Amino acid sequence: MAWQPAGTATDCDSVPDTALVTVTTRLEPGQRLRITKFIAYGWSSARSREAMRDQVIAALAAAKLTGWDGLQAEQRAYLDNFWANADVELDGDPEVQQAVRFGLFHVLQAGARGEDRAIPAKGLTGPGYDGHAFWDSEMFVLPLLTYTFPAAAVSVLRWRHSLLPAARQRARQLGLEGAAFPWRTINGEESSSYWPASTAAVHVNADIAAAVVRYVGATGDELFERAYGLELLVETARLWRSLGHYDRHGGFRIDGVTGPDEYSALADNNVYTNLLAQQNLRAAGDAAERHAEAAAALGVGEHDAAEWRRAAAAMVIPYDAELGVHPQAESFTEHEVWDFAGTPPENYPLFLHYPYFRLYDKQVVKQPDLVLAMFERGDAFSDEQKARNFAYYERLTVRDSSLAAATQAVLAAEVGHTDLAYDYLAEAALLDLEDREHNTRDGVHMASVAGAWIALVFGFGGMRACGGALSFAPSLPAGLTRLAFHVWFRERRLRVTVTSETARYELLDGRRLEISHYGQALSVGAGALVERPIPVRPRRPRPVQPAGRAPLRRAVYPASSATPLAQRP
Amino acid sequence: MAWQPAGTATDCDSVPDTALVTVTTRLEPGQRLRITKFIAYGWSSARSREAMRDQVIAALAAAKLTGWDGLQAEQRAYLDNFWANADVELDGDPEVQQAVRFGLFHVLQAGARGEDRAIPAKGLTGPGYDGHAFWDSEMFVLPLLTYTFPAAAVSVLRWRHSLLPAARQRARQLGLEGAAFPWRTINGEESSSYWPASTAAVHVNADIAAAVVRYVGATGDELFERAYGLELLVETARLWRSLGHYDRHGGFRIDGVTGPDEYSALADNNVYTNLLAQQNLRAAGDAAERHAEAAAALGVGEHDAAEWRRAAAAMVIPYDAELGVHPQAESFTEHEVWDFAGTPPENYPLFLHYPYFRLYDKQVVKQPDLVLAMFERGDAFSDEQKARNFAYYERLTVRDSSLAAATQAVLAAEVGHTDLAYDYLAEAALLDLEDREHNTRDGVHMASVAGAWIALVFGFGGMRACGGALSFAPSLPAGLTRLAFHVWFRERRLRVTVTSETARYELLDGRRLEISHYGQALSVGAGALVERPIPVRPRRPRPVQPAGRAPLRRAVYPASSATPLAQRP
Repeated sequence: MAWQPAGTATDCDSVPDTALVTVTTRLEPGQRLRITKFIAYGWSSARSREAMRDQVIAALAAAKLTGWDGLQAEQRAYLDNFWANADVELDGDPEVQQAVRFGLFHVLQAGARGEDRAIPAKGLTGPGYDGHAFWDSEMFVLPLLTYTFPAAAVSVLRWRHSLLPAARQRARQLGLEGAAFPWRTINGEESSSYWPASTAAVHVNADIAAAVVRYVGATGDELFERAYGLELLVETARLWRSLGHYDRHGGFRIDGVTGPDEYSALADNNVYTNLLAQQNLRAAGDAAERHAEAAAALGVGEHDAAEWRRAAAAMVIPYDAELGVHPQAESFTEHEVWDFAGTPPENYPLFLHYPYFRLYDKQVVKQPDLVLAMFERGDAFSDEQKARNFAYYERLTVRDSSLAAATQAVLAAEVGHTDLAYDYLAEAALLDLEDREHNTRDGVHMASVAGAWIALVFGFGGMRACGGALSFAPSLPAGLTRLAFHVWFRERRLRVTVTSETARYELLDGRRLEISHYGQALSVGAGALVERPIPVRPRRPRPVQPAGRAPLRRAVYPASSATPLAQRP
Repeated sequence: MAWQPAGTATDCDSVPDTALVTVTTRLEPGQRLRITKFIAYGWSSARSREAMRDQVIAALAAAKLTGWDGLQAEQRAYLDNFWANADVELDGDPEVQQAVRFGLFHVLQAGARGEDRAIPAKGLTGPGYDGHAFWDSEMFVLPLLTYTFPAAAVSVLRWRHSLLPAARQRARQLGLEGAAFPWRTINGEESSSYWPASTAAVHVNADIAAAVVRYVGATGDELFERAYGLELLVETARLWRSLGHYDRHGGFRIDGVTGPDEYSALADNNVYTNLLAQQNLRAAGDAAERHAEAAAALGVGEHDAAEWRRAAAAMVIPYDAELGVHPQAESFTEHEVWDFAGTPPENYPLFLHYPYFRLYDKQVVKQPDLVLAMFERGDAFSDEQKARNFAYYERLTVRDSSLAAATQAVLAAEVGHTDLAYDYLAEAALLDLEDREHNTRDGVHMASVAGAWIALVFGFGGMRACGGALSFAPSLPAGLTRLAFHVWFRERRLRVTVTSETARYELLDGRRLEISHYGQALSVGAGALVERPIPVRPRRPRPVQPAGRAPLRRAVYPASSATPLAQRP
């Protein structure tokens, strides 16, 4: 047998499109030929060609030494470890079960070897969004990675940290202090050309801070916090302090910004933005006190933390007392409700058929904004407010964004609409697998497939992490008989199994963990198992969506046994 | 003597750059040669080449028949007539006197032969603004033409009428009813590429309606109203009715629009826009009733006028009761005040040095917005509100627009700051003559030179035309000893002469006219003269402008006799 590589790693530029390998041998009847081909790949924007060549040659050498079976065993162990930490089991809907694992795999693919680079909106699956990364990364993909594969989450956060010089420069350009991160980017520079929906969408800065808070809370990674997280928190807190201002009543206002919903722009006191900026300011103050020396090195003065906390405490959160709901931003609930009845189905998504001039001044929501605020800052809303707000915004939300369904699933489950949550879960999970938006050829929406995991864990699992502790309030819809998921939290591996009657908490690895179940404190020891009943919650009337924009029904509804398990187009 | 035209009007395309005319003769000592050259010019985008040629040949033939002296006499008579109707005499400031006549001449040049075309922002004086016409035309240039040379004003309004098909198409494109006129245009199509400051600046539609109301009020031209004005009023009223909506308290709101001030955008219930839309809706209802048959032909139904009046009556006009001022738009007075102290002089105009993201959410005004509302809809504000509002917005207005000074002059004079009004008058009048913005090479700002006339007639003359009657409340600043101006109003020619003590009203032509002087009714007969004293008004403290943005002082201040007459850079 002779083999002749036509291109080698020693001369990257001369590698032809097709590297020829000619294999010649003679086989007798019954004989088998097994060909093992080792391929190594190296890329860098920073290292020298020589260093890359050495890396590739070393990888090939190591692979040949390890051999096929050894490599396969390593890969299997790697994946077994991932699935042990991350797998979700779902009884009652094999399609969604498959879709969630499909999503977990693709998020892993995108994050596993990120090496301090961004996770783009389409991961490694396609050219959609030109390879740019957005806030989706911090708010939809990182929750999954933080609680299943934190090493990948911290890699993304280090990438954000590496953008600080560009973000500081951008803040200076805007006449602001601290750092202003770009809306869409590859290398740290703002790549959007439409400022009302990018530069003005400053919430991306609080989203990055929220991801830092989430990661540090889940891992207790103080080294990261001191070396990276602190600076991200401090620089974004400085941004908020310089962007907002105290009004004549002492309220701290953030005016003229764009929240997550892209059918509004340049509004005052967007509730999502203000609540996440509030969290950002407090977290910066706390971190600066925990790491006083590092904070001083960043120029944090003795009054800065107090000043950030003062702004956070004074943050204006508009509320429409007459309607009993929070306006998405000041005056939102005074605006005209979009004419849903007069909008034909073919005019969705609206942004392809109506000018922003007509959308911005209407009560119409592309993707959850106030509802996302209730997920991320659930502590800022009463249960009754959550239920009323959710129902109010359901009537207005058209889900013209792949970022919509997962968040709606979480809040639907929280306020007791588990059947509706199931519909939204299925939409998030199957968006790309069923090519519902006719754009799967551009790649898989990382935020949506991660969103299916969010819908299951934060929705039906009812998981929240607030103040460094995990809490659960699980509940399943009709049609799903069992949900089990794994959470990696502060060196522990927790397995949560939910059925329609009970929730079971098992600590698979690590020291005893204090959690709560529907507000009741639980202590779970290593190897132990705690089981608790799931309380029956009052049924509320199913919220109404805009005409023609209700999600496809997925759940089996007890009231209508004729409804098939899964209605699909 | 032989003459040989090298190019003739019969073949436009072949006319060389230089048309040669050779004249040969022999002169004896003491003899004089007089050469009279007649030139005719024709242009059309609609007529045939043959028709233009005929027109030019006819003009040449008529000119030869009339002869040089006859043509000169005709031209002199034309200009004498214009100056008799339009001239302004000003004692005490020869520079401003000259500047006002310079402005009147250039406005006449731009409007005299408009022939149902636009008056562009630079008139016929230069290439600035690419020859586009804006709302400046209706709100700054047409007031001058309406009261001095109404034939030119009506030509501009007929031009707007000719854009109705394009404006209707634009309204359909925006999902609105009626007509949506372009922000900047030549041929009726929107030529601006930045929609928050163009498409959203819908007040241009109410400005056109205001110009119709002003012209019909000043001329009583019912033929125009029936044939052109009615349709302009009806189509713009339809726009407002479809753009606004009734809120849950029955208020009629117009959300997400941009007012005259270009340092704000996409705000709710801009007071200027809402007050002018209110006038627009009422005027459409009135005109539709006056011309019922023509209105029916335009599809005006029997309830439409009532519906327009209902929206007008319910129009939301925000008011900040705590500060006792009108916010320019809802929430404006809650926004942070621009850091004027921290803005170095070289950073003006602000729009060249700061992103709109930072300007839009601040209390900083490029050009009068609420103050212009108080000029155009003075009936909607009490005297006390006017004084408080004026002082409030003086602190915020940086005059980064040539449209600013004239309006500030008018309101300064109205609320008693005649010295400040004089400063603004001089700024408007001398802007281009002294090349204060270093752009006179691009042409003369028609709105600013017309604005000087506005400052004199509406400011120091205190003229207003409301409900078909003229009223005056004149007053002069220190330094100006006499102002005389002429107004053409409903077939009458009125001459108003103001000194520091008295105002004299003379009816030079036409039937008896009822006017008012400081609220007191006066009846002025043909050839008669009525003189009234000017009341002494309380002095208020001079309003403060942003640091470094006060106008150059022009007036002689009694308190400081050492101040020279005119301080200039």
